[in-house]
Amino acid sequence: MKVTGLDHVALAVESIDKARPFFEQVLGLPVRTIAEVPEQGVRIAFIDAGRCRLELLEPLDEDGAVARFLARRGPGLHHIALAVDDIQAARSELDKAAPGLAVGQGTAPAAFGRRAVFLNPKRSFGALIELYGKED
Amino acid sequence: MKVTGLDHVALAVESIDKARPFFEQVLGLPVRTIAEVPEQGVRIAFIDAGRCRLELLEPLDEDGAVARFLARRGPGLHHIALAVDDIQAARSELDKAAPGLAVGQGTAPAAFGRRAVFLNPKRSFGALIELYGKED
Repeated sequence: MKVTGLDHVALAVESIDKARPFFEQVLGLPVRTIAEVPEQGVRIAFIDAGRCRLELLEPLDEDGAVARFLARRGPGLHHIALAVDDIQAARSELDKAAPGLAVGQGTAPAAFGRRAVFLNPKRSFGALIELYGKED
Repeated sequence: MKVTGLDHVALAVESIDKARPFFEQVLGLPVRTIAEVPEQGVRIAFIDAGRCRLELLEPLDEDGAVARFLARRGPGLHHIALAVDDIQAARSELDKAAPGLAVGQGTAPAAFGRRAVFLNPKRSFGALIELYGKED
């Protein structure tokens, strides 16, 4: 499979507004965009961090995966996103080469109209890894 | 403080040798260098991931921070490393601007003769953040 490289690292936080001053003022890394991804139950902020990005994930409701992560483990590193050129091809390829590695079926909606596939962390050495499609 | 950007994301693993085929063969991301950092009690592997890098951390003994992390939480995302041009200046600046944010005193040895400062995750929204000095 053709992974282009690391796109971003996501951190789960209770509140983007409360976390933002730490990243912007203490570390000097600016928030570039904020968006809601209701399909994933999150509000997200992308932070410029040189050649890659950080992403803050704030739950929109109490039922989503990020809300459950926060309740179970508290805030912290949540997942890494690896860019792939063709997310549909990546999914098909994985299903053949490593059946059961990708969770669910097909691709899931991500921010800004992009599509994603998550890998089962039990199969990826404990790290939650998102394959993140390029913009159409 | 002047953070240049994300340098790498570190994942704690029980064994670099066992994890390596997943990253190299399934994801297509090559291991570039392997080294030991006895001061931190770890063996590390840097993996090329486009414009940033992944780092695998394997404990060298049962007493180090990574061994304790694995015993407590299992393998997974461990920390993110943000590059700074001048690690001594970054430490001094943090000690004035945000006393108690950086752990310990001074700078700690990292791989390849570089120096690092770790931030207290209770003050950085649960994420363990390493400030990582440029090579001398």
